[in-house]
Amino acid sequence: MSQHRQDLLREVGNFVEQLYQKGVRDVVLSPGSRVAPLALAFARHPHINTKTVSDERSAAFIALGISQQTNAPVAIACTSGTAALNYAPAIAEAYYQRTPLIVITADRPTEWIDQWDGQTIQQQNIYGKHIKKAYHMPVDLSHDDAKWYRQRIGAEAMCQALEYPKGPIQINWPLREPFYPEAGEEFIYESTPQSRREILQSEPYLDDETWEEQLLPLFQENNKILIIAGQQQRDEYTVEHLNNLNIPVLSDVISNYGNVDNAIIHQDVFLSPNTFDELKPDVIITFGMSVISKNLKLFLRKNPPKYQLHIQEAGEVPDPFQALSTIIRSTPEAFFDQMSSKEVEGDDHFLEVWKNADDKVKTNKTDFFDILSFSELEIVNHLINELPQNSVLHLANSMSVRYANFIGLQRPDVDVFANRGTSGIDGSTSTAIGHAIKSKDRTHVLLTGDLAFFYDRNAFWNNYLPDNLKVLLLNNQGGVIFRMIDGPTRQPELEEFFETEQRTNAASLAKEFDINYWGINSREEFYFSYQEFLNDSDKPSIYEVFTNKSISKNTFKAFKKEGLYSK
Amino acid sequence: MSQHRQDLLREVGNFVEQLYQKGVRDVVLSPGSRVAPLALAFARHPHINTKTVSDERSAAFIALGISQQTNAPVAIACTSGTAALNYAPAIAEAYYQRTPLIVITADRPTEWIDQWDGQTIQQQNIYGKHIKKAYHMPVDLSHDDAKWYRQRIGAEAMCQALEYPKGPIQINWPLREPFYPEAGEEFIYESTPQSRREILQSEPYLDDETWEEQLLPLFQENNKILIIAGQQQRDEYTVEHLNNLNIPVLSDVISNYGNVDNAIIHQDVFLSPNTFDELKPDVIITFGMSVISKNLKLFLRKNPPKYQLHIQEAGEVPDPFQALSTIIRSTPEAFFDQMSSKEVEGDDHFLEVWKNADDKVKTNKTDFFDILSFSELEIVNHLINELPQNSVLHLANSMSVRYANFIGLQRPDVDVFANRGTSGIDGSTSTAIGHAIKSKDRTHVLLTGDLAFFYDRNAFWNNYLPDNLKVLLLNNQGGVIFRMIDGPTRQPELEEFFETEQRTNAASLAKEFDINYWGINSREEFYFSYQEFLNDSDKPSIYEVFTNKSISKNTFKAFKKEGLYSK
Repeated sequence: MSQHRQDLLREVGNFVEQLYQKGVRDVVLSPGSRVAPLALAFARHPHINTKTVSDERSAAFIALGISQQTNAPVAIACTSGTAALNYAPAIAEAYYQRTPLIVITADRPTEWIDQWDGQTIQQQNIYGKHIKKAYHMPVDLSHDDAKWYRQRIGAEAMCQALEYPKGPIQINWPLREPFYPEAGEEFIYESTPQSRREILQSEPYLDDETWEEQLLPLFQENNKILIIAGQQQRDEYTVEHLNNLNIPVLSDVISNYGNVDNAIIHQDVFLSPNTFDELKPDVIITFGMSVISKNLKLFLRKNPPKYQLHIQEAGEVPDPFQALSTIIRSTPEAFFDQMSSKEVEGDDHFLEVWKNADDKVKTNKTDFFDILSFSELEIVNHLINELPQNSVLHLANSMSVRYANFIGLQRPDVDVFANRGTSGIDGSTSTAIGHAIKSKDRTHVLLTGDLAFFYDRNAFWNNYLPDNLKVLLLNNQGGVIFRMIDGPTRQPELEEFFETEQRTNAASLAKEFDINYWGINSREEFYFSYQEFLNDSDKPSIYEVFTNKSISKNTFKAFKKEGLYSK
Repeated sequence: MSQHRQDLLREVGNFVEQLYQKGVRDVVLSPGSRVAPLALAFARHPHINTKTVSDERSAAFIALGISQQTNAPVAIACTSGTAALNYAPAIAEAYYQRTPLIVITADRPTEWIDQWDGQTIQQQNIYGKHIKKAYHMPVDLSHDDAKWYRQRIGAEAMCQALEYPKGPIQINWPLREPFYPEAGEEFIYESTPQSRREILQSEPYLDDETWEEQLLPLFQENNKILIIAGQQQRDEYTVEHLNNLNIPVLSDVISNYGNVDNAIIHQDVFLSPNTFDELKPDVIITFGMSVISKNLKLFLRKNPPKYQLHIQEAGEVPDPFQALSTIIRSTPEAFFDQMSSKEVEGDDHFLEVWKNADDKVKTNKTDFFDILSFSELEIVNHLINELPQNSVLHLANSMSVRYANFIGLQRPDVDVFANRGTSGIDGSTSTAIGHAIKSKDRTHVLLTGDLAFFYDRNAFWNNYLPDNLKVLLLNNQGGVIFRMIDGPTRQPELEEFFETEQRTNAASLAKEFDINYWGINSREEFYFSYQEFLNDSDKPSIYEVFTNKSISKNTFKAFKKEGLYSK
């Protein structure tokens, strides 16, 4: 065996082993020649699952879903050239949603960059600011220092991706030919000293002095306290601690804390910037990432609390409410544990006012739809009421996630995911497929609209379509969101340049990819066959409901109006 | 009208007018709210054609096609967030293919970046090194300096995009709400002093001294001269000058100089690194961009000429043959004009040897396919023989462009395009659609494979499908290219991880988008209905031929073997 190939099989093999040691169990490849040694080393590793997806844009979103569902780092690897650029939307989403994608971009050696040779672009730092760190492997496979450097990069990159706040990292790897092993030649999967690198974290508890001297006095003087959960997955210990507090906990549908005792879930419906004084907090305590509720943001920006405490272990802290005063380097679990054992008390009346406002919407929605025409909001209400036991709900961006947030969710057995890091419409279906592939025992329901659905239609172009995926597609033939806001509605260009009217439907696509399909045109059809759609099947299912833009818009507005807080 | 809106309508309107003054006639928008003022200003401009395409990846490639076809700058504009990232593959292609895309990314004002607000990412310099220059508009609409700065950016950006080597530029524009005009409010399209900025170029002729003292002696001592055309569009004056020289002109299928008198078009077939000495040049003169012929590159790298002169007006010059010695800051037209009037003479025998090698392949291919099984190369041969009068040929990457380069093309009435800037498979169909939209009087034939075709299936998801588009789709259910090289063929993972077997076909897609469709399974069917496919129609057409990987591979290899140069 040539020295070059011997070095290659060892260096690539050891790198893959290092990723495995640090928790990588799933890899999504996209085909290409330059990436071949990496692809083969992943595919031949005895404990790594390897899939291959041709469209890199979809591949990266599928990997994002797998990583979120398994709560583990997932690697993606592609060949040189624009392949790497097609990863970019999912990498930005992973960056803002703090998901550890290990992005491996095979490259040509530096000497061939910008020399009019095929599939060669400037791949170093190609993801700009949307990557936790970008690494570049040495092309040299043989010098001892180069070997140590390569292993150190592997160790550093994995620690970087996995330390809080987690996020994507890029490893760009220039590879010289030949890179295909001969028959009988094997990759060497060895654990190197660098594979051992780990990070030990300190306890995340604030000391007693900080509590006694700063926080307890603050809460005593300002006891109209609101807790606001941003996007995150539910932690059961945190639920317990929150249940010990008499403080309202605002949970958007993507925040997954709708099931705590004092959860408030309809803030987006009942709040407005000019809401009555009694809802105004002295202090807000925030944890998790973004919130959807635009009305909550406007309310708080208009009525700033005296303090905002944000709980986050490490990293930069955004300030979406324009109120951030105190960053608490702790975990929600530890902080709320301390808060409950220190017996922090909220204002009971304040809690009651919030609960009443929330309850009014809850009551209102039970028979709100009965006398109205069939609308998208009614469909979403039914979808949420009928979510299967122990299921996972995926929400596409634009109206899908807003509708669901209006309806709200309090089920402890349901997890909700949405690409709210960047709120792009580009990869919702692929992400849901990534999730569904890795949790075969749960039903995954995706709520999506026609623009998001057709944008990401290549989500179905792979050999791994999961039969536990149920797609509810609201097809109003364009972006109904533009009808919800006043500005575009007034423009003569509304249909052509905003809604971008499109007349396609998913029937052909379902046929092409052998997917169950229903096309629904009325309320009667909807209620008649909806249960059938949820039944177990050996194929994925698409339930496409053709809806009316104007009715859906007016129902949405009426729901908001009915629910608005008034004394 | 509020001052803010008054400023907005004037500043955005003037900017659009500035683009118009500098040659922008076509704009491809993608829908969104942040981009609304720009979208409306483009749509309402009396002399600009505006289209809207939802998938930004496809939108940008369509714009690339329009720009190439019209030989004019084309603007694309999208909303904030990952929309801009979906543009990236086409922008890299535009960068390396020197196409002037004016990329306008609407942004949130800086204060909202990274604050967990929807559709907000780090958009400044988001295209890294694949953009000629990235500009950032001031958010301030009212201060006189800010207005001048904005207009100066517009002027600078347009000059930058259009000066040789042309290329894409980005204008990132943070916009504050409100940004929708009220009824009756109009954009102001005024020509500002900055709109006048222009660049006057000097004559591109080398002086007599340089010719007499340096170039003529060089050509006298080294008269085995090869001219090599890289990718470009044909210039008729250059053809004339080349016809005055007794020097072989190597033209790949994408170089568009196959119709000059001494054109050599089969170099990729008859060359190998170990070709006989009599083909070896003393000097090569190159112009245009990349070449496809891998065998030409290998031949020249193995047998370096003493000199390589590259003709390029300005900008960095790559060195794909590892032989670059002299950069000539001139145009091909001017340089070959001088070369012919200075009566530079090549070696006649050398020309004859090259012509003989080329002729052998030409003769060989006339009845090469008769006794063989039906293969992809035979299909491409027929496609090229039967190209309609005055048509445009588009070649997708991977095998399509290689097959076509093997068969070669010498038609003066046909133009050939391919995304060989980055050689990505991601946007070939969209690019062809952009071309076809803008030249309704010509038939546009796209040769593509299944991976490239399905990758870019959203190319069809718009309201502008041109009926003069004819897609010949070679469907071998995966990437046959991996079977052409030895490495992957030897791996047990060939089908799963390299070819990425896929079983779909274009029938459903054609139905969904109302496209003529043929599915062809045999040679008989192929020759029976091929002419029907080329006939005029009021819809686009897809002609899908199901082919056999092994046969296609072996035929390709046999063709190469037959054509190899031997004395």
